[in-house]
Amino acid sequence: MFAVIMAGGKGSRFWPRSREKMPKHLLDIQGERTIIRETVDRIRPLVPPERTLIVTGRSHAAELIRQLPEIPAENILIEPVGRNTAPCIGLAALHIRKRFPDAVMLVLPSDHRIGDEITFRKVLAAAGRIAAEGNSLITIGIRPTGPETGYGYIEQGDPFPSGEKEAIHRVRSIREKPPLEQAREFLRRGSFLWNSGMFVWKASTILGAIEKFLPELHAGLLRIREALGAEREEEIVGEVYSAQKAVSIDYGVMEKAENVLVVSRDFDWSDLGSWDALWEVSEKDENGNAVRGSWIGIDAFDSLVHSPGKMVALVGVRDLLVVETDDALLVCRRGRSQDVRKVVEALEKDGRKRYL
Amino acid sequence: MFAVIMAGGKGSRFWPRSREKMPKHLLDIQGERTIIRETVDRIRPLVPPERTLIVTGRSHAAELIRQLPEIPAENILIEPVGRNTAPCIGLAALHIRKRFPDAVMLVLPSDHRIGDEITFRKVLAAAGRIAAEGNSLITIGIRPTGPETGYGYIEQGDPFPSGEKEAIHRVRSIREKPPLEQAREFLRRGSFLWNSGMFVWKASTILGAIEKFLPELHAGLLRIREALGAEREEEIVGEVYSAQKAVSIDYGVMEKAENVLVVSRDFDWSDLGSWDALWEVSEKDENGNAVRGSWIGIDAFDSLVHSPGKMVALVGVRDLLVVETDDALLVCRRGRSQDVRKVVEALEKDGRKRYL
Repeated sequence: MFAVIMAGGKGSRFWPRSREKMPKHLLDIQGERTIIRETVDRIRPLVPPERTLIVTGRSHAAELIRQLPEIPAENILIEPVGRNTAPCIGLAALHIRKRFPDAVMLVLPSDHRIGDEITFRKVLAAAGRIAAEGNSLITIGIRPTGPETGYGYIEQGDPFPSGEKEAIHRVRSIREKPPLEQAREFLRRGSFLWNSGMFVWKASTILGAIEKFLPELHAGLLRIREALGAEREEEIVGEVYSAQKAVSIDYGVMEKAENVLVVSRDFDWSDLGSWDALWEVSEKDENGNAVRGSWIGIDAFDSLVHSPGKMVALVGVRDLLVVETDDALLVCRRGRSQDVRKVVEALEKDGRKRYL
Repeated sequence: MFAVIMAGGKGSRFWPRSREKMPKHLLDIQGERTIIRETVDRIRPLVPPERTLIVTGRSHAAELIRQLPEIPAENILIEPVGRNTAPCIGLAALHIRKRFPDAVMLVLPSDHRIGDEITFRKVLAAAGRIAAEGNSLITIGIRPTGPETGYGYIEQGDPFPSGEKEAIHRVRSIREKPPLEQAREFLRRGSFLWNSGMFVWKASTILGAIEKFLPELHAGLLRIREALGAEREEEIVGEVYSAQKAVSIDYGVMEKAENVLVVSRDFDWSDLGSWDALWEVSEKDENGNAVRGSWIGIDAFDSLVHSPGKMVALVGVRDLLVVETDDALLVCRRGRSQDVRKVVEALEKDGRKRYL
């Protein structure tokens, strides 16, 4: 079994800590370890570093190698440009199939938080066994805890018979991020799961599905396959990528394929997509404040403070996200952290590159 | 005419910018010049540096001399400990009377803001003429613009006949900071003025009043007078101060004396007592934000930001005071900046001296 960690994200919603040169997964936003360090450590009992591949952009490769010295250099796959998840997964599948034609691959985002790692690994192991036995495309679903509009959803169909303890179903449909009313309806119906963006399948199975549903991508991947290990590899990858459309594996393959299963269980998952999400999963004091570092609160409630090394005082405030770096300071109302992107857009528009 | 600038304040309400070593009057909180620099410049057309005395604590003297190189060294009077305004004024009066027995002295706090400096100087000049002609104790009153509970009040009595254009009245009573209901009543009655803490009198007149109403202080001042210029001066000042009770000139003298006048006029005065007061007097953009430095506001209103050199983003917030220094960050609800003192108290209690 191989693991593929997709580390192409920009994470502009974690500004001012996330920057073009330092996306979310390279930051220690949650604790002592960086998020990608946690991701690699988390799957290590299932998949050793020699079989862990990481797909990333050129500008982040050096920092990634620095943070993960145990990952062999040939396991760091460089995408010349980002083209969403389908090309990324196809590229990794090529490399894996070349090494072991029958290998199962776990596909994992680089930047999620998992509370219950033991259950998480049990779910992946069960999915791996099912993937190894047949030609299923397996996705990991999360039981929703609220009418979240920031996630895609997976509709469960009939149970899939297996010897596993996990709840495994055929997938009836895959849904994009819904408006609030629909999210509420999904929650009421009970048969909808959050789409975690994690997948398990044989490399050969997903390459076959890409051939069927994304033939242009498949043709490009064939060109890359011929160049693997050759001097021209980087050049060919560049050509293929620049000619591809950006397409997600959900939209490009999963919504169309027949042999899709979903394994679901609760393992305290969050996509850690924003400062709001971080506040949600952080430990808080009795007044609801999640603070890293020294601080004094006078009538301060339900706030997040990230200001390493500085003495922070909050007086008479609630529901704030306060984040400080060497050169920037964000003060955002809780619930509004999606709009941190607008700050990054404004900085781009003003040409203030040093803050990007 | 001499000027005495009382620079003994600690200004803990301007934390984190104000510190034990750097009280408010030594900071450039409002603009390019420090507050005491503005105070000295403002009276310079009336009183040259050679006749401007500054009373301050030992730990602030070096910085004060650095900021005000034109003030002669012998005009910097050191108080070994703070004992409120009566001993401070008495000490300055001794020095002035020694140089010119009949001199008039203006007594000014070091840390106020004056919008209309020309009018301000006219008021002081008129008060100076009246003080020179007789034995009045003159205080400067400000026409109130609201039921302020943070200021003391002066009740006007009968008009005082003079050749001046200014409104000059006898003082009927001097009131401590009132509760809100009383402040409203003062405003309704129309005969109450804010007590600016500025005074004009002959040095001999105030020393006479101190002799009458604060005999213990007067005895101490006589001891100091004998030691002025002698080797023992510093030692004697230390002994006298440590034996004195802290007492304000308002409570100790002005509330009891008969010959008290008030000159009143509007010259856009603020005691700049807090971050809230600073927001009030600051220039603001069309959304009510007063910001020094680079910033981006997304739905941000009625806030103050002081974060020199840093890119600040406010998202979805209103009514905040955000102040940052090299080692500390304050985020305070507007209207709550009196409670910044509580932050300083908490830091003291926790023994976190580096932030004091």
